[in-house]
Amino acid sequence: MATGNYVVGIDVGGQTTKIGVVDARGDVLAQKVIRSDIYGIDAAAYIEALAAAVKATIAEAGKEGDIRGIGVGAPNGNYYQGVIAYAPNLAWAASESVPFAKMLSEAMDGIPVTLTNDANAAAMGEMTYGVARGMKDFIMITLGTGVGSGIVINGQVVYGHDGFAGELGHTLAVRNNGRSCNCGRQGCLEAYCSAIGMARTAREWLEATNEPSLLRNIEKITSKDIYDAAKEGDALALRVFEYTGKMLGRSFADFVAFSAPEAIVLFGGLARAKEFLYEPMMTSMNENLLKIWQGKVQIVFSSLKESDAAILGASALAW
Amino acid sequence: MATGNYVVGIDVGGQTTKIGVVDARGDVLAQKVIRSDIYGIDAAAYIEALAAAVKATIAEAGKEGDIRGIGVGAPNGNYYQGVIAYAPNLAWAASESVPFAKMLSEAMDGIPVTLTNDANAAAMGEMTYGVARGMKDFIMITLGTGVGSGIVINGQVVYGHDGFAGELGHTLAVRNNGRSCNCGRQGCLEAYCSAIGMARTAREWLEATNEPSLLRNIEKITSKDIYDAAKEGDALALRVFEYTGKMLGRSFADFVAFSAPEAIVLFGGLARAKEFLYEPMMTSMNENLLKIWQGKVQIVFSSLKESDAAILGASALAW
Repeated sequence: MATGNYVVGIDVGGQTTKIGVVDARGDVLAQKVIRSDIYGIDAAAYIEALAAAVKATIAEAGKEGDIRGIGVGAPNGNYYQGVIAYAPNLAWAASESVPFAKMLSEAMDGIPVTLTNDANAAAMGEMTYGVARGMKDFIMITLGTGVGSGIVINGQVVYGHDGFAGELGHTLAVRNNGRSCNCGRQGCLEAYCSAIGMARTAREWLEATNEPSLLRNIEKITSKDIYDAAKEGDALALRVFEYTGKMLGRSFADFVAFSAPEAIVLFGGLARAKEFLYEPMMTSMNENLLKIWQGKVQIVFSSLKESDAAILGASALAW
Repeated sequence: MATGNYVVGIDVGGQTTKIGVVDARGDVLAQKVIRSDIYGIDAAAYIEALAAAVKATIAEAGKEGDIRGIGVGAPNGNYYQGVIAYAPNLAWAASESVPFAKMLSEAMDGIPVTLTNDANAAAMGEMTYGVARGMKDFIMITLGTGVGSGIVINGQVVYGHDGFAGELGHTLAVRNNGRSCNCGRQGCLEAYCSAIGMARTAREWLEATNEPSLLRNIEKITSKDIYDAAKEGDALALRVFEYTGKMLGRSFADFVAFSAPEAIVLFGGLARAKEFLYEPMMTSMNENLLKIWQGKVQIVFSSLKESDAAILGASALAW
């Protein structure tokens, strides 16, 4: 089977799991979505349902017996061990380490399964099919509910000693009296520059002043609301983007000092707000870079269709 | 020549250049020291003198015709390009990019020359002959006049897109109103945790209070003075070490989030103060690490004899 001409990409998310059969050009031939959140703590039941859906997707694409491997992107997915471990948003893997790759491979009659976290999968996807084609050194930053990262050095995803490398969302953006983060610490980049962090910035600023803003009438502000308000020219919303972009750029400068990448590649919901984020991000990164790197590091945005990107990223693991 | 059984290691410093002939076990068979600072801006003159000294050292070791290669560690040394570029402390390379590897190789009748910066050379040395033998993922931090770093991922030194990766001394330890750094920016780790940074901490604290201290009588405080005072139980000197260790540990936590190394390896003058630095460094690193890494990352100190370490590190490049 390991000699097939097609691969399967699986993106495991908190609510849904997306499955796709992918060819070498990055075309998704068939895809399916199943729920991830209706199996309680029963990992075996989830994996059984997943294997059935994967088989159905392969059948729909007409590629039975021609699958080289299955790549999986999952929160807290560990490449070395093939486990999903202590993933708060997946009930069946929240309080244990699930040997996901082994279980799925068995349920799939031995097709090899490779697993990594979602940000590493995104990096693989960009390198294989996206804006990072031809790049050997770049850092993928995923801006969504959280801030994730996948680091590529010399053409290889960095997994580190234990398979958990690349938690740049949890480097400190603010070192004293920083915002509390979901990880239990304070001041993490994620606490400021995720969708949730951005909404928090907006709320804090609205509370601190009486400045008029379209955001005042909204009960539970989301990053989408801030984007819409910025589109309308709302001054406070525009400043939230500027602030978020500056925080990101400043942290990017530290990341560059580590691995000297040719580009930072952005993906995820917030990355759609390129028009508001790019300039403050780029300016602040360059202001904070050592001279040898000023003006030399690109910030680029994913070119993959968002609905396919997670599947493509995961599938890239399986080649 | 590239099949010889011995290598030459060269450590280029601001004042002196150390040369050694090294065998596969890491024994230095013969060594010489020449001045680096008496050639003005004449790189060719320096390299001519260097080649003569290297030939004399090889002759002294009796290994003519048996040299596999020459490894060079130098400030601002670029591995990809083989150049020493804009190195403020080397007059002959301060305002230009010197094609050092090519020039030295020609002067050495074609023996291959490999060049990198001094911290990367130190990392190679620890991996080949020192405490990092057998480690595939570690971060070398050199604590001297400055704070340098060499990053090893999956057994390979990280050079990055342009050969300049690993400037961790210039990540920001303090993000607002930080101390000015030699690099022209503010708040760099180096401005706090180098020998010079530590002396500055002591001076600032002495000026801010009337606290009695052995350091009060010293006109130009060095890190050695602080070490000696700490040895005598001087409370202020001990607090300077505690502060320095805390700053280092906090930054180490961010470095771990990048590459998930099994260890941070320390080398250089300040690293000799293990007795005062280890505990605050380790405690603060663990306090600032994500849970998955708490208690799992070692901090180790170089085991190489300090007089040989720079030569050994450089020589390790040549195997």
